[in-house]
Amino acid sequence: MSLETLASGLDTIWVVLTAAMILLMEGGFALLEAGFVRQKNAVSIIMKVFVDIAFGALIFYFFGFALMYGKDAFGIIGTSGFLLNGDLSHINLTISKETYWLFQSAFVIAVISIVSGAVAERINFRAYILYTIVMTGLIYPIAGHWVWSVGGWLGKLGMIDFAGSAVIHALGGFSALAAAILVGPRIGKFGSDGSVNIVPPSNLPLASVGAFILWFGWFGFNSGSTLSATNSSIGHIAVTTMLAAAAGSATCILFTMLRYRKADPPMVINGALAGLVGITAGCAFVSDIVAIGIGIVCGIAMVFATEFLESRRIDDPVGAFAVHGVSGSIGTLAVGLFAMPELTANVGQGYAGLFYGGGWSLLGAQALGLLICCIWGFAATWIACKWIGKLTPLRVSRDEELVGLDVGIHGVPAYSTEDGFLDLGTLKSDLKP
Amino acid sequence: MSLETLASGLDTIWVVLTAAMILLMEGGFALLEAGFVRQKNAVSIIMKVFVDIAFGALIFYFFGFALMYGKDAFGIIGTSGFLLNGDLSHINLTISKETYWLFQSAFVIAVISIVSGAVAERINFRAYILYTIVMTGLIYPIAGHWVWSVGGWLGKLGMIDFAGSAVIHALGGFSALAAAILVGPRIGKFGSDGSVNIVPPSNLPLASVGAFILWFGWFGFNSGSTLSATNSSIGHIAVTTMLAAAAGSATCILFTMLRYRKADPPMVINGALAGLVGITAGCAFVSDIVAIGIGIVCGIAMVFATEFLESRRIDDPVGAFAVHGVSGSIGTLAVGLFAMPELTANVGQGYAGLFYGGGWSLLGAQALGLLICCIWGFAATWIACKWIGKLTPLRVSRDEELVGLDVGIHGVPAYSTEDGFLDLGTLKSDLKP
Amino acid sequence: MSLETLASGLDTIWVVLTAAMILLMEGGFALLEAGFVRQKNAVSIIMKVFVDIAFGALIFYFFGFALMYGKDAFGIIGTSGFLLNGDLSHINLTISKETYWLFQSAFVIAVISIVSGAVAERINFRAYILYTIVMTGLIYPIAGHWVWSVGGWLGKLGMIDFAGSAVIHALGGFSALAAAILVGPRIGKFGSDGSVNIVPPSNLPLASVGAFILWFGWFGFNSGSTLSATNSSIGHIAVTTMLAAAAGSATCILFTMLRYRKADPPMVINGALAGLVGITAGCAFVSDIVAIGIGIVCGIAMVFATEFLESRRIDDPVGAFAVHGVSGSIGTLAVGLFAMPELTANVGQGYAGLFYGGGWSLLGAQALGLLICCIWGFAATWIACKWIGKLTPLRVSRDEELVGLDVGIHGVPAYSTEDGFLDLGTLKSDLKP
Repeated sequence: MSLETLASGLDTIWVVLTAAMILLMEGGFALLEAGFVRQKNAVSIIMKVFVDIAFGALIFYFFGFALMYGKDAFGIIGTSGFLLNGDLSHINLTISKETYWLFQSAFVIAVISIVSGAVAERINFRAYILYTIVMTGLIYPIAGHWVWSVGGWLGKLGMIDFAGSAVIHALGGFSALAAAILVGPRIGKFGSDGSVNIVPPSNLPLASVGAFILWFGWFGFNSGSTLSATNSSIGHIAVTTMLAAAAGSATCILFTMLRYRKADPPMVINGALAGLVGITAGCAFVSDIVAIGIGIVCGIAMVFATEFLESRRIDDPVGAFAVHGVSGSIGTLAVGLFAMPELTANVGQGYAGLFYGGGWSLLGAQALGLLICCIWGFAATWIACKWIGKLTPLRVSRDEELVGLDVGIHGVPAYSTEDGFLDLGTLKSDLKP
Repeated sequence: MSLETLASGLDTIWVVLTAAMILLMEGGFALLEAGFVRQKNAVSIIMKVFVDIAFGALIFYFFGFALMYGKDAFGIIGTSGFLLNGDLSHINLTISKETYWLFQSAFVIAVISIVSGAVAERINFRAYILYTIVMTGLIYPIAGHWVWSVGGWLGKLGMIDFAGSAVIHALGGFSALAAAILVGPRIGKFGSDGSVNIVPPSNLPLASVGAFILWFGWFGFNSGSTLSATNSSIGHIAVTTMLAAAAGSATCILFTMLRYRKADPPMVINGALAGLVGITAGCAFVSDIVAIGIGIVCGIAMVFATEFLESRRIDDPVGAFAVHGVSGSIGTLAVGLFAMPELTANVGQGYAGLFYGGGWSLLGAQALGLLICCIWGFAATWIACKWIGKLTPLRVSRDEELVGLDVGIHGVPAYSTEDGFLDLGTLKSDLKP
Repeated sequence: MSLETLASGLDTIWVVLTAAMILLMEGGFALLEAGFVRQKNAVSIIMKVFVDIAFGALIFYFFGFALMYGKDAFGIIGTSGFLLNGDLSHINLTISKETYWLFQSAFVIAVISIVSGAVAERINFRAYILYTIVMTGLIYPIAGHWVWSVGGWLGKLGMIDFAGSAVIHALGGFSALAAAILVGPRIGKFGSDGSVNIVPPSNLPLASVGAFILWFGWFGFNSGSTLSATNSSIGHIAVTTMLAAAAGSATCILFTMLRYRKADPPMVINGALAGLVGITAGCAFVSDIVAIGIGIVCGIAMVFATEFLESRRIDDPVGAFAVHGVSGSIGTLAVGLFAMPELTANVGQGYAGLFYGGGWSLLGAQALGLLICCIWGFAATWIACKWIGKLTPLRVSRDEELVGLDVGIHGVPAYSTEDGFLDLGTLKSDLKP
């Protein structure tokens, strides 16, 4: 056996294992969201996660990957690699194209899962399937091409986003915001007298464990993005990921104790995730201390963003925008401020942040790229939802929403304490036609 | 350090990590089954999963492994390797015998876990322990020897089954069918007037997350079956695994929307699993597109098989036969149709399916091997259960079944909202003697 | 690429992946503990797990690691490596200092999580944060230095503890015991008439899955402790880990069927964990059969220890002492009895247990080291809690305990079946000030 065979095998198992960890994050999203929503909608949100992973993977296989990583046309879009066929010779990796696809498919599935939380408890299931196709086949692949693909225009301008604070989280978060606005708030969330109503999450233990699974998967997400097991940044990436997550949750524990006089469980859960989102762009590029700082800032910003959205009467049941949109933006800009030349040299081409002698150029590229990602995500989602709304209602009916989407749409409750049996004939006639 | 040391270390961590992933699938089985059954039996099914992993591992260590992978006698049975001692020199691997055992023990535990779901909510716990010993010590090891061990007669006839659609899933599924028939339906499942009664699953979020954990573990199951990290099929295996699972669940989403006018959560969960089971035999041998096709066919077949079993008044609470028996069979045959010579060359000895120039020989071997595995699983389980039934009742008493096995057999409910304490003395006198 | 680069990359991903697996164990602890406690305290215990991972990681980064693995002073304490800076040249590894820190941080987080279970349902949240800081910054790092760091006095005396039966589990378990005694039993646990009251665990499926996740993580915990992927013990370690866990749970299944006439789910769950704890010290050093023996002994000892603690009117809601303190002690001593020279040569410097020709010296060192770890954990925790009790009450108020810590301290219940919304204004005035 040659050294090259061994190195390629090592890279392959590294990418396959980290891809599997990222895909397990769908279990994390499912738990997180099912735990945060009301019990009557717990299954319906999980069914959306199944749509994410099932339709997302297939669409990304058929054409999303080609548009994202295919041969570049004008810096704007990929043009080869449909069904993984055609010329992909510009992708220069030690792993196979298929292995690369697997890892990238795990990313696209994460993006659409971000949106699922923001439209929970009221989006029409058919509309959600259509939106998933548009997101995983067009919106994300095109933005991803700009930043990450050989020849993409934002990448050429000098933007760097190691594992996707901008491309995945800011884009996903701003898409979530657009979708949440268009679908509208849940019935009863905002009183006509201006009051803001809340509902206690239906299952906080599930939501918490969802966060721990996401945390675990994030080590795959960030470290695996090296795509090579001999990249010398891997240890550093894992450590900054850990520290930012710890800082995000510690911050939200202390900050909510100060602000609400109690350590607020949903905020602590989202604080950990905010730290993870925030470090995603810079995990390979910034120092440990900066990673802690990013976690702190993202944790606090997440709390304020959650409050701000409520004050604007925008209903985002799981805090998708506050976690992914806001922290993703902070993390992307932080790279422009704190990227260290000796760390970027490890992975990229020697970028440096404003505070490390790089001047304004990297920060400018980050700010521009971030702005583009946010606008693109928001606008494309807006247009897609408007178009989808002409094909099928965006939202379930009032009755379905009141009875809950689980029984209303999927014909079965999330939880049942029934200890006997129900007659199937009777049930069938009760189901929605 | 030499290249060989490095290669062996790489193979070892690959197998240990994937074995751990497969063993985590027991957590997935536990969630899946606890979520699908009624609340009053949720712990009892999890206790069976503990029996699977605890007794399964020990029995397989003491003699199952020896019968499966020991020195061949007449193509029928292994004869060395009890407690991992004795001559195992015919096993030619870069990893240690112990590491190999660990991986194989994860497989045997999966087989018995398939059966646990089919007999849920009514099997006697003692009988289940005895059956576990027979399955993990005799039934599975012997069939596994025929197909996978050096000298096994089905392997010599040309049957290939990469990670066990036949050896694990079809055998497990047909064993589950035999056990479900013998134990009989749950009280109330089938009305005397011919009606079929259903119960809403007690906890669909748990069941869903069980499926995501199983999906994660399957990457270990299939990719890890290379037993070597430098096998060039690993990436391809992971991708076909992903695509088949995605196709299975996407198919069940769309198909149940057509057939039942609602995306049916339990069917979607089982659809993902059906795709995974179906690709297990051919993950290394078939193309991506065929993998998608296998997922689609298995998804639809699973729905029909579930309905068929109900119509035959056979009670399989979690759909173990429909998922494992049917999809395992489809997957095994699909190899005979679609195995590509250039892919099998990577792993085996240059087999080819009917549609890829291999003629009928591979298909014939697959069909024969599948038939043997199904008959063996069904018949051996039937005989074993009949024999066990003479030692201890196969089924709990009517009272225990009505009150639920959790309290009836294990003396504790799965869920408790008690917010104070119960007096231990009073409780003890309430417990079954 | 050179062989050295490849080897270092391999070691790095091995340590990063196993560290991630260990950190996922926090999700396991959260589920286990939330499932075992009463429903009204399920979130509060999970918030403590967040404290463990968030504060634990940060404190260990700032100074815990330095005190543990920094340059030795007098065999007693480390003196360099604060924020991973300073002279750490005495640490001779193929992985980076940061990667090493990550793995060790996962360990310290496990230690404090052991204590969290013992004080569940009544400890004051502020006090718990302070205790976490002391444990992860002082108590554990100092003991760890004695045993594991270059120059530590217990290590120099010849004590070996492969992955921490003594340093992590016995220390954690005896710390848990001290804390449980000081905080006192939950209201109603022990009647004034001498009766012992129990509460059915609130969610046994969650607790069970927590155990499966812990089991999975333990493969990382034990095998990863080699810190090198080419260590030839890895396969053996994984196998002894598996066998001890299987033996622990099988034993508790059979033993509780004998003793209580029912397979007792909480005991079976803890039996698996007891086996895992017990094998942690010797996983690399003892034979497979001894591993099974350790699992059996630890399983039975755990049952008796649980009963003993109740009889002494010490309230340890999740059995932290019985699992970690007792099994950790057994496992540490077992190394002194059963360590095999050919296995210790692989990892250490050729130690041998009493039954393998090593005489009394290793057993003596193990016994002394264990005693020191237990006394240190117990005493340091006692002193720390006494000191913390002067700053803030150790225990919640009676009202908070009766209403439950979830609503009482964190302002939100773990589970809610609410299907509408609650007015935020009303809620706020209900919250604790």
